[in-house]
Amino acid sequence: MTVEEQVRQARTASRRLASLSRGRKDEALELIAEALRRRTGEILAENAEDVALARASKLSAALVDRLYLDEDRLMETVVGVREVAGLPDPVGEIQEGRRLANGLELTRVRVPLGVVAVVYEARPNVTVDAAALCLKSGNAVVLRGGSAAKHTNRMLAEVVQGAILEAGLPAEAVAFIAGPREVLLELVSLKGLIDVVIPRGGEELKELLAEHSRVPVIAAAGGNCHVYVDAAADLKMALAVTVNAKCQRPGVCNAAETLLVHRAVAGEFLPLAVAELTRRGVELVVDRATTDLVSDPRLKRANRTHYETEFLDLKLAVRVVESLDEAIEHIATFGSGHSEAIVTGDLGAAQRFVREVDAAAVYVNASTRFTDGGQFGLGAEMGISTQKLHVRGPISLRELTCLKYVAWGDGQVRS
Amino acid sequence: MTVEEQVRQARTASRRLASLSRGRKDEALELIAEALRRRTGEILAENAEDVALARASKLSAALVDRLYLDEDRLMETVVGVREVAGLPDPVGEIQEGRRLANGLELTRVRVPLGVVAVVYEARPNVTVDAAALCLKSGNAVVLRGGSAAKHTNRMLAEVVQGAILEAGLPAEAVAFIAGPREVLLELVSLKGLIDVVIPRGGEELKELLAEHSRVPVIAAAGGNCHVYVDAAADLKMALAVTVNAKCQRPGVCNAAETLLVHRAVAGEFLPLAVAELTRRGVELVVDRATTDLVSDPRLKRANRTHYETEFLDLKLAVRVVESLDEAIEHIATFGSGHSEAIVTGDLGAAQRFVREVDAAAVYVNASTRFTDGGQFGLGAEMGISTQKLHVRGPISLRELTCLKYVAWGDGQVRS
Repeated sequence: MTVEEQVRQARTASRRLASLSRGRKDEALELIAEALRRRTGEILAENAEDVALARASKLSAALVDRLYLDEDRLMETVVGVREVAGLPDPVGEIQEGRRLANGLELTRVRVPLGVVAVVYEARPNVTVDAAALCLKSGNAVVLRGGSAAKHTNRMLAEVVQGAILEAGLPAEAVAFIAGPREVLLELVSLKGLIDVVIPRGGEELKELLAEHSRVPVIAAAGGNCHVYVDAAADLKMALAVTVNAKCQRPGVCNAAETLLVHRAVAGEFLPLAVAELTRRGVELVVDRATTDLVSDPRLKRANRTHYETEFLDLKLAVRVVESLDEAIEHIATFGSGHSEAIVTGDLGAAQRFVREVDAAAVYVNASTRFTDGGQFGLGAEMGISTQKLHVRGPISLRELTCLKYVAWGDGQVRS
Repeated sequence: MTVEEQVRQARTASRRLASLSRGRKDEALELIAEALRRRTGEILAENAEDVALARASKLSAALVDRLYLDEDRLMETVVGVREVAGLPDPVGEIQEGRRLANGLELTRVRVPLGVVAVVYEARPNVTVDAAALCLKSGNAVVLRGGSAAKHTNRMLAEVVQGAILEAGLPAEAVAFIAGPREVLLELVSLKGLIDVVIPRGGEELKELLAEHSRVPVIAAAGGNCHVYVDAAADLKMALAVTVNAKCQRPGVCNAAETLLVHRAVAGEFLPLAVAELTRRGVELVVDRATTDLVSDPRLKRANRTHYETEFLDLKLAVRVVESLDEAIEHIATFGSGHSEAIVTGDLGAAQRFVREVDAAAVYVNASTRFTDGGQFGLGAEMGISTQKLHVRGPISLRELTCLKYVAWGDGQVRS
């Protein structure tokens, strides 16, 4: 079967999914979870094959680790599927509605997008996570995983499709596509058949889609996030927020990459911050104002590139600013529009920061690390979007839907 | 000044616009309306020059008519600006909010997109309409009008910029760009500086942007709209809805292009419909089942192309369907996802139609002609979008904004 035929079948199946009640969808999710549990042995056997091939072809240890599944990791995925079943159904939500002057009852109803393509790389759990989120939001899904995980992905897709059939739903609603780069390019040329493509992978994959996709793309983005310690900050709170934003999990997109400190508190705050952060193993790259205030041989001088970089590591750029304006300007110049935090007790400063900083999430007196579907109470997600159209922030169930106007009348015509 | 410099200045200005109160914005709109009124003579003089050049270069009468301004047309634009001032401010709306378990007060706030590029063709009123909608929604706007209206557009832009300065706002918030196709292509390559581009023009312009724009596009789309007369329809209502959907203004995107009639009522309904529609000058292209039921020499036989065509004229395709399923299938095959109507007294049929037909607006017992910002109570708009991401339906003030998460805390960190 060609890629286009598979996608057409998924499109046909999507029309059935769109009308399903929550009960039917949750039942299917439960059957998927159960099948994954029951067929753990088979799945791990296929995974062992992928891992052996990856090792034989000398893939990096990090990549092999991303590929690797064991019973614990698979059970996390099973738990994830059950969590999706527990989330409210976004489909059918009436976002707003009113009776117009002519008597038309106008509502705006949440409906599935239709067919979602998810393009990913090594992690085989995405196969199941993406299928569960798309099924719950009433969308058919076309999965295109990386070649390194092909045995695992094929087995996972088979298990998911089997469970969907068992639930009395069309197995074509979860399409699995393998093959070279040309296949991917064909897939993202199918405008009109696929409603959105979501890349889950590195910058290279995202660039490829930005360049070639005719289908709209929603991409989870990286984050160059800042913590700004204002003149009116509670310095103990500022230290706790900075340490949490940098150290709690440095390798993720909502971790802080630059610390901005107002000149008025820099003399008191920076020695504390430098001591605590270096104690926790954070490498600091700082401006001249910081070295003027703190003499520590471990401090390295920052250049423009450091302020532009998402380190994703125990490394933090530091800069002293003369004013709130300078902090906002720095963030406008270097930020990636992900998550930005101010620590302050000054209401006016907080209000200006909240209004003037342009990002998916802006925090007052809290760590940037909260930008996350689970933390926001939205449940599982497919990453954090920093684009402005359609979805800004966690790409969760609701973001896999769109709105449709429905008008109920009794013969209204326009005069 | 280069295009990029103009856009960068607009971007800087957009940050000031984002924080403006409704009062300041409405005041600026009032000054724009007043300046347009006061400088009518100058504007019409520039317009006369464009019209003379257009006639001299033998542009079509239809195109010259689109270019042409007189006092009445300009006053309509002035009224339009005052209407925008009367609309609620979308910026600052709190779409939702709650206190999380950790005490963070999380809200989702509506904010401007930033910089909106509007690319249009002959109609000079777009210069003012687009500037007014963008200003009200807190966005800077980059206007790129067609060369045929260049004198008028330049004068209108000057008038608008003067009024904005008079209001104490940065004139760079309304940038006007002229020049050849290369300039347009440069403009839509400025990803990161421009947040969205909205084409207002023919299919060729939209195709050009779909192909070349690196900036996300929101396009007003054409509509291949259907009226389906169900087995359980009130036939008098069905006739009124059909006539209104086709004849009230045939040249617009929400006019009906195909009539689908259930077999069970075709024998009674089609003779009435054919008589009434032909009496109103509608040319009918019909299937064999219709000619079997109505013998009228004016009926022409429809082919697949007719069902695919947006006539935008007093022309209607007709088809008899055997079932609601066949009607839904026909719409799925040929519809463009704009506006679709069912006429029925059967609740079950209405519910299925509403759920299963995939369109921006679905009507039960009402004309498709209501899909319009003004009719929906949303005010002025920049066309109807049939895309699913970000905006489906009228592109009104709210659709020129996006959402930002704002979290107020008192020291929350993630554990």
